[in-house]
Amino acid sequence: MSSTFGTLFRVTTFGESHGKAVGAIVDGCPANLELTEADIQPQLTRRRPGQSALTTPRDEADAVTILSGTENGKTLGTPIGLSVNNKDQRPGDYGEMDVVPRPSHADYTYLMKYGNKASSGGGRSSARETIGRVAAGAIAEKWLKSRFGGLSIVAYVSSVNTIECPPMEAEGLTRELVDATPVRCPDADTAAKMIAAIEEARDAKDSLGGTVTCICRGLPAGLGEPVFDKLEAKLAHAMLSIPATKGFEIGSGFAGTHLRGSQHNDAFVQKGDRLGTTTNYSGGVQGGISNGEPVVFRIAIKPVATIGLAQETVDLDGKAVTLEAKGRHDPCVLPRAVPIVEAMAALVLADAALQQEYRIR
Amino acid sequence: MSSTFGTLFRVTTFGESHGKAVGAIVDGCPANLELTEADIQPQLTRRRPGQSALTTPRDEADAVTILSGTENGKTLGTPIGLSVNNKDQRPGDYGEMDVVPRPSHADYTYLMKYGNKASSGGGRSSARETIGRVAAGAIAEKWLKSRFGGLSIVAYVSSVNTIECPPMEAEGLTRELVDATPVRCPDADTAAKMIAAIEEARDAKDSLGGTVTCICRGLPAGLGEPVFDKLEAKLAHAMLSIPATKGFEIGSGFAGTHLRGSQHNDAFVQKGDRLGTTTNYSGGVQGGISNGEPVVFRIAIKPVATIGLAQETVDLDGKAVTLEAKGRHDPCVLPRAVPIVEAMAALVLADAALQQEYRIR
Amino acid sequence: MSSTFGTLFRVTTFGESHGKAVGAIVDGCPANLELTEADIQPQLTRRRPGQSALTTPRDEADAVTILSGTENGKTLGTPIGLSVNNKDQRPGDYGEMDVVPRPSHADYTYLMKYGNKASSGGGRSSARETIGRVAAGAIAEKWLKSRFGGLSIVAYVSSVNTIECPPMEAEGLTRELVDATPVRCPDADTAAKMIAAIEEARDAKDSLGGTVTCICRGLPAGLGEPVFDKLEAKLAHAMLSIPATKGFEIGSGFAGTHLRGSQHNDAFVQKGDRLGTTTNYSGGVQGGISNGEPVVFRIAIKPVATIGLAQETVDLDGKAVTLEAKGRHDPCVLPRAVPIVEAMAALVLADAALQQEYRIR
Amino acid sequence: MSSTFGTLFRVTTFGESHGKAVGAIVDGCPANLELTEADIQPQLTRRRPGQSALTTPRDEADAVTILSGTENGKTLGTPIGLSVNNKDQRPGDYGEMDVVPRPSHADYTYLMKYGNKASSGGGRSSARETIGRVAAGAIAEKWLKSRFGGLSIVAYVSSVNTIECPPMEAEGLTRELVDATPVRCPDADTAAKMIAAIEEARDAKDSLGGTVTCICRGLPAGLGEPVFDKLEAKLAHAMLSIPATKGFEIGSGFAGTHLRGSQHNDAFVQKGDRLGTTTNYSGGVQGGISNGEPVVFRIAIKPVATIGLAQETVDLDGKAVTLEAKGRHDPCVLPRAVPIVEAMAALVLADAALQQEYRIR
Repeated sequence: MSSTFGTLFRVTTFGESHGKAVGAIVDGCPANLELTEADIQPQLTRRRPGQSALTTPRDEADAVTILSGTENGKTLGTPIGLSVNNKDQRPGDYGEMDVVPRPSHADYTYLMKYGNKASSGGGRSSARETIGRVAAGAIAEKWLKSRFGGLSIVAYVSSVNTIECPPMEAEGLTRELVDATPVRCPDADTAAKMIAAIEEARDAKDSLGGTVTCICRGLPAGLGEPVFDKLEAKLAHAMLSIPATKGFEIGSGFAGTHLRGSQHNDAFVQKGDRLGTTTNYSGGVQGGISNGEPVVFRIAIKPVATIGLAQETVDLDGKAVTLEAKGRHDPCVLPRAVPIVEAMAALVLADAALQQEYRIR
Repeated sequence: MSSTFGTLFRVTTFGESHGKAVGAIVDGCPANLELTEADIQPQLTRRRPGQSALTTPRDEADAVTILSGTENGKTLGTPIGLSVNNKDQRPGDYGEMDVVPRPSHADYTYLMKYGNKASSGGGRSSARETIGRVAAGAIAEKWLKSRFGGLSIVAYVSSVNTIECPPMEAEGLTRELVDATPVRCPDADTAAKMIAAIEEARDAKDSLGGTVTCICRGLPAGLGEPVFDKLEAKLAHAMLSIPATKGFEIGSGFAGTHLRGSQHNDAFVQKGDRLGTTTNYSGGVQGGISNGEPVVFRIAIKPVATIGLAQETVDLDGKAVTLEAKGRHDPCVLPRAVPIVEAMAALVLADAALQQEYRIR
Repeated sequence: MSSTFGTLFRVTTFGESHGKAVGAIVDGCPANLELTEADIQPQLTRRRPGQSALTTPRDEADAVTILSGTENGKTLGTPIGLSVNNKDQRPGDYGEMDVVPRPSHADYTYLMKYGNKASSGGGRSSARETIGRVAAGAIAEKWLKSRFGGLSIVAYVSSVNTIECPPMEAEGLTRELVDATPVRCPDADTAAKMIAAIEEARDAKDSLGGTVTCICRGLPAGLGEPVFDKLEAKLAHAMLSIPATKGFEIGSGFAGTHLRGSQHNDAFVQKGDRLGTTTNYSGGVQGGISNGEPVVFRIAIKPVATIGLAQETVDLDGKAVTLEAKGRHDPCVLPRAVPIVEAMAALVLADAALQQEYRIR
Repeated sequence: MSSTFGTLFRVTTFGESHGKAVGAIVDGCPANLELTEADIQPQLTRRRPGQSALTTPRDEADAVTILSGTENGKTLGTPIGLSVNNKDQRPGDYGEMDVVPRPSHADYTYLMKYGNKASSGGGRSSARETIGRVAAGAIAEKWLKSRFGGLSIVAYVSSVNTIECPPMEAEGLTRELVDATPVRCPDADTAAKMIAAIEEARDAKDSLGGTVTCICRGLPAGLGEPVFDKLEAKLAHAMLSIPATKGFEIGSGFAGTHLRGSQHNDAFVQKGDRLGTTTNYSGGVQGGISNGEPVVFRIAIKPVATIGLAQETVDLDGKAVTLEAKGRHDPCVLPRAVPIVEAMAALVLADAALQQEYRIR
């Protein structure tokens, strides 16, 4: 089931970093949704490499083609085939790594799993695999917005290394605000510090990690399945499936464990025609089901494993070697992770919404 | 898919807190594994209420019956039916909550989802639902140990409120050590502080949260599916499906985002007949696949929502009310969460191991 | 996935013929459906052994207990646990077969698959496994009828050996009519001949096969998923999963291959407020999707493999032996297959209907 | 789940008849299998239109491209993306059918399901959808042959209208023999009669149906999952998912219901180092699991719905019209169905074999 995600709104991805194409099949998208490549391309463009001095210089336009599933600009209800050609292939880039597994990378574990290794570029563990997700997520988001007016999904870089963005109000947070700087932190002062830190790390041939926060507003109450497919469980699954992620927390998360029940409980209050809560330590979910408040979660992303600095390690025969990666890589993947997080959130939410449709007739 | 978990080693659970029984069907367990109720009961007993002054006084023996799937003490390869009767039913306990949804509990969201509410005891969101998981997890663990000699899965309470257990060595950590105190923290000094804090909260009619850490040793490299079913993604899914959890991190987790790539990378080194790593910031997984080092993760569990302290909230009509919960509840669920975490870990690992079996012939 | 069936309306069964219990978990049944054991028992009673001189003398009341998922006589939307105790266990009955695999039975293939064998009674391949299906199907049917007024699912024995029932009108066909004779053929003259044939075969220690026809009326158009999960594909899957079935055909089936397109096409005609067809060679499905006409299909069921007559065969060491089965068995399972066919049809249709709900809002 | 088939060896297809491309993603194919387009193309070529005077004149080379999942001619273990461009698009061909649903075609039911209709060519219900299946099946077959030496899967046209091919010996049946005539019936005399009948029907603007028989030799015992995923249930599901199929039978099938148990049982006998059976009424499966004998099944395929002859029917408003189809269509799809049947059989068998791998270590 490795390459398929979702129960009713399902995406199956394909593609290695240096093959002919990457892409996805989206199955289960409702019919009669207006959809063309122009709805998908913007998020792919936000994800693509080479978009700023903070990212890998590998240059790909990442132009998507819809192969099936639409006619006259509307979905048919049938599978939507999506394809993005790989243009800037340089299979020779990673030659040395054929025998020296990169520390904290997937080289060694893929070898253990499959008994082989894509000769270059990391194969399926490459960030290019996420293109199919981002394209599919853009479709999921389009459907969600057509179904729930006012829905928004916005992620941003909330920390880089030890530089923390102050808490942001959900109200007023937009992608435009997030994209005001290339680091995708909506607080201008913090963004400037983050950019400086990333440039320093890049010049030092090192890399930085951080966190991405995502806020989903305008969701109805009732989404998420009890027990194994709680909304937060599916979100955690989705987020930890993104390369380089090491943690997930929703609402108060780890910090919330420092509060007592009497401090942490979100009291109910009437909000217009629905019940709401005065605080949102729950992060918009209770018992695994959305309660109508914003769904807020945060993801930890480790510093990129591929660095230019010399590393002492061993080759596959256990012989000591010094490794200096030469390929093109990002010093900090956080800014490019933002649309990927949004895409995975949209896929989880669209799937949960479709699963709830038949209950709320 | 709400009540089913796993692809090849699959568990489906049933049961509300106050119905006739709770239980599970385990499908996909290999044949010819020695298995009787005696293999399952110990973890259920570690999970059961009423086992110490730190837990709910609701008293249930939680004795499990195997209904099918074994003969002469061995598994047949067919579905294993598991049932635990509910004995101490007191449907009247939660009467008031029928009209006043408990803050940060599932009452409101279940109502939004299903248009109804189990009249008492929280229905499916109750901790009793986890009985089926723990029983199934005990079977998964038994199979894992029969397949991989030396494998161990041990969880413990690593913090309660702000009381933190110092880092534990994976080596030498056992369930016996964990169970030395009722709080299930293996460091005796920390355990004493945690017990005092929980007793204080209990007497104050309040509740505490904390973290559970789980260490899985003796796994082979190669477990986990790339892309959507990465080992950490399935673990995150499993852990966030446990009631009251708010966060998951693997290896260095959120703290690791403060390190640079050159500090965070786990250098390879020869360890006996396999490659290992000098550090384990990766938490035993790289690219979503186990690398043979211990799999280490941590879960945030919020303070219990049901508390005896008066809470200002509103009823379903939006009218202000003061709620004082009267039912039997735990002031801190952390100690009882330990076997649940181990069970979910075992289910994920057994499923991943079976998915890898056909590749490594 | 062996013991789970369905995508949204899902049943997972458990139980061997001679264990403590057999049963099922039904997950995905919508909430607020009126449901008690009295809704389920009638079909179980139609399926149970010992109901007439035509069936096995093994006597089981097969009384079902709902373990979870309902409260105050209504479904909660949570998994419905169902259990039926095995009462009349005689594990010694089949002793000889431990070393002599019964011809055309599952003894040998289970041994090849699992490396073991349930010591008696056929284990999971026993007809008792179908109890969980029948119970689950009764719930599916109850929901379908609450959702689609006028829906009916009626199966009957359409042939026994070479004795064929004349074509029956869908209109007016009821379970009462079917149950008028113990052989469950609604044509009285044919029924009498079938009964005589079965009694003759029983006395000769032999067995007979035949066909069951099932007619589903009152379905809306639009059910069934294109491509792999066509309605007829799911029905065929469901029916061929019933023990002893060897064939499935829908609408004109195999006989329809003798017609030309110009003879076989079902012309459209206005029927009230919908389009209907003048003929129904299609059997109610076109392109895998229901068209609003009755869904009509037929299943071939082989003569029971377990017979009292002496059979020349070999034991597991290849040594020639003469086998005379001594256990309790049916000379013809057709009458008891009728509620099983209806149950599997209801499960397929309820699942298809739920999958369509979100599309037709 | 509509467009995905299989549990471990999984195929997801995409594509309408007149879109940019059709294709599939194959997930779960084991790594290190030698695979290039040359392994896939032959079956696509056997399926393609325009290959003889008996088939539609629509001309498509149907050249397949592998987009991902292989490197240096070997599978990586990652998803294999497959694409075939649609070249000969004539969207205008089916104009009239926009308002007049073709009798016994999917036009009306797709409209009922999705509230729309692919403007031309039948959209997803078109035979072009099967290209993804045939490509995926060719990969499944390649893997099966690499795993089980001597395995063969051969289908042939066993009847056209009332012209029946005499029973064929499994031994000696090859694709070469089948392809000796364009009608793909291996008996030369019968083939000549079939060809004449198809030509007559074509000239009369009518169409013919028939049956395809498939024989799978060299399978190990033990394949297939008990209960819901019996091998015959999955085969029936797979075959009834092929457009225009109306029936499936395995082994003795419907004719076997005319035999008594004492005639129908397949006695065991020692065959080399395994048990075999003297007859094969079971069609190679017992209790849903393969027994090592050839798996033999037969499929009913209705006469093509799209015919040039005038048909009296009604339009979507119920107004009487006379319809004469003008598009390019086959007078008899049986010869082109042969590789599709083989492909679906290979997909079922590969999936069953992988599910059994972990049990037989």
